[in-house]
Amino acid sequence: MAIIVQKYGGTSVGTIEKIKGIAERVLRRKSEGNDMVIVVSAMGKTTDHLVKMAYDISPDPDKRELDVLMSTGEEVSMSLLSIALNNIGADAVSFTGQQIGIKTEGSHTKSKIADINENKIIDELQKDKIIIVAGFQGVNEDNEITTLGRGGSDTTAVALAAKLKAQCEIYTDVDGIYTVDPRLYPSARKLEYISYEEMLEMASSGAGVMHSRSIELAQKYNVPVLVALNTGDIPGTIIKEMDNTMENTAITGLAVNNDEAIITLNGVPHDISVVAEIFQSIASKEINIDMISQTFPVNKLVNISFTLPKTELYRASRILDSFKDKLSTFSYEAYENISKLSVVGIGMNSQSGVAARVFNLLAENRIPVSIVTTSEIKISYVISPGDQTKAIEAIAKEFDL
Amino acid sequence: MAIIVQKYGGTSVGTIEKIKGIAERVLRRKSEGNDMVIVVSAMGKTTDHLVKMAYDISPDPDKRELDVLMSTGEEVSMSLLSIALNNIGADAVSFTGQQIGIKTEGSHTKSKIADINENKIIDELQKDKIIIVAGFQGVNEDNEITTLGRGGSDTTAVALAAKLKAQCEIYTDVDGIYTVDPRLYPSARKLEYISYEEMLEMASSGAGVMHSRSIELAQKYNVPVLVALNTGDIPGTIIKEMDNTMENTAITGLAVNNDEAIITLNGVPHDISVVAEIFQSIASKEINIDMISQTFPVNKLVNISFTLPKTELYRASRILDSFKDKLSTFSYEAYENISKLSVVGIGMNSQSGVAARVFNLLAENRIPVSIVTTSEIKISYVISPGDQTKAIEAIAKEFDL
Repeated sequence: MAIIVQKYGGTSVGTIEKIKGIAERVLRRKSEGNDMVIVVSAMGKTTDHLVKMAYDISPDPDKRELDVLMSTGEEVSMSLLSIALNNIGADAVSFTGQQIGIKTEGSHTKSKIADINENKIIDELQKDKIIIVAGFQGVNEDNEITTLGRGGSDTTAVALAAKLKAQCEIYTDVDGIYTVDPRLYPSARKLEYISYEEMLEMASSGAGVMHSRSIELAQKYNVPVLVALNTGDIPGTIIKEMDNTMENTAITGLAVNNDEAIITLNGVPHDISVVAEIFQSIASKEINIDMISQTFPVNKLVNISFTLPKTELYRASRILDSFKDKLSTFSYEAYENISKLSVVGIGMNSQSGVAARVFNLLAENRIPVSIVTTSEIKISYVISPGDQTKAIEAIAKEFDL
Repeated sequence: MAIIVQKYGGTSVGTIEKIKGIAERVLRRKSEGNDMVIVVSAMGKTTDHLVKMAYDISPDPDKRELDVLMSTGEEVSMSLLSIALNNIGADAVSFTGQQIGIKTEGSHTKSKIADINENKIIDELQKDKIIIVAGFQGVNEDNEITTLGRGGSDTTAVALAAKLKAQCEIYTDVDGIYTVDPRLYPSARKLEYISYEEMLEMASSGAGVMHSRSIELAQKYNVPVLVALNTGDIPGTIIKEMDNTMENTAITGLAVNNDEAIITLNGVPHDISVVAEIFQSIASKEINIDMISQTFPVNKLVNISFTLPKTELYRASRILDSFKDKLSTFSYEAYENISKLSVVGIGMNSQSGVAARVFNLLAENRIPVSIVTTSEIKISYVISPGDQTKAIEAIAKEFDL
């Protein structure tokens, strides 16, 4: 019998009625002869509500306790889904991360799954049970409750599927992966397939749906992942290894990110040790910077621009202020109002000139670009938000997205 | 250093502000040189809300899953209290029943604490931590989450105090144990002390405050228990072994129960095997019956009356209906409208005539009594609810309650 791991996100289990609906669907798949393992997130806005209570008490709540607090949300969902399944004649049983043997490592609120002890799951599947597992949580080697960070339930599902050599199905409130976010470009096409590499670049470039960590894990263990609408009645997108079934187009998708800001450092001495010191100071505060560009030196000084999440702008500014005293020529400017477009496609490997085609398109449409960075299968452009719609339409038409 | 186990009930941790207030009080006691172990219930009506969701899904939710569901409520409270303590400079850490080693036995939703592995607590106390423990929950030998039934957090606190040879303080929304429920008799006095035996009889006779199981446990391990208001600023009542410091009065308290019903069985053959069969049928459905009285036999038939919780009336009736076919003379009547008064006092042991004094009082006030039962330190009377206030006042004045 095939084992199927399904994951239902927060909106999918947001109400009693939705939980009952999921129970019906899970039982149907079970009746078709599949072994079912179901991973659930917390209901609706539960996690946000719990976190808000913690921050109402303390501006800096203890992360160990935050993990304990947040872990309860998934436990409510899992027991309710189990009750719903038992109510319609299924034989279901729910397990916390601790109970099912999800071992984690790393710091609280952003732990990683170190291993899963699959014995308990296999025992219960052999008793013909439907297994419900709390997503997003595990315990570390000290039996402390830990959580896996945003999108952690996806990671739980992929890790279980990898361990059980099972199919993995992620049910969410979007019906698949699109070439462009349909809210920004309504003519976008839904992809039947996307490769792990492309999905990773899309995810890290601002296309939500799934978090990078779960895709990395799927790629590492070669677990095909179906992403589909939680009603289950329309086809979704399958994330899998690149193969011949995929379209051989230059660009698979266009990701748009409006959550980043840009900082430009002016008058930085053209000395690698100074530049390194600045970036190390920022990295030491765990601020992730993304695109970096540097001008040619003039009078032994360079200008450097980089992007970072808007939420980190304040902390980064405090660090840069400390360099003003040390470096007489140094100043910086920050702009919150930017739009980052990333074109992603494995086809770039084999088709030359994609970057040039995009540049030409932007020039024809008189859209100035402030930074460009390229990787093997992705090119990112920072433009003005006012040009965003025009740029999306031009690129989508040119590359048939 | 003395170890103090404190328990805070649902209303005591009902809001963020209340949790912050408790954190201040706990830290103060810690600063005075005490080792603090805090047991918490779920916030406010959380447990009711969780149970309602389960029953919205299923008329008969799986008890194992109900336990998982309900156990989350205490975990939310404990992490928030720990965050509140850490926020004011304390060093607090919270533990689930599983983490702190609370081992249970018996069936789901009404398990009993089998043992507590105190090593983890002692380790953490030696690190000078304030320990927060989820009340009401534990795990059985299969690592299944179990709960202890209504009032279970009191039991957790008393069991911890017994294991740690600690003081036990139960903070709640009443300010102590009264001779009579002050809502029914505003002149009632608060008791400074009450013996375990008397408290047990009061609790089993309808005086809320604490559940019988926790008092039995306190008595078994001779743990004195302070019951006090959750603001902690007025003296409460101490439940402890009977000794000379207690008042030597005939009656310590008067418990009033309006949650019972009475069933009268008519025309029952005066044959012990028939009577036993009827009561065994009722007992087999786990319906607890309380006061029983039987008339003298007339024509080899007897009438039998007994009381039972109103909530069990329907189930008991279904069982009794099944005897109508077997016993041609048999019929029964049920009355939901009764009032049960129980006078409780260790003094009854040494002072004769208490029952007679109460009977005289009721007769003088023309209050008919339908059933009377006596135990060593308690006498219960079933009267009409219309006579309740008059009876309470007469008894309270006579015995100076």
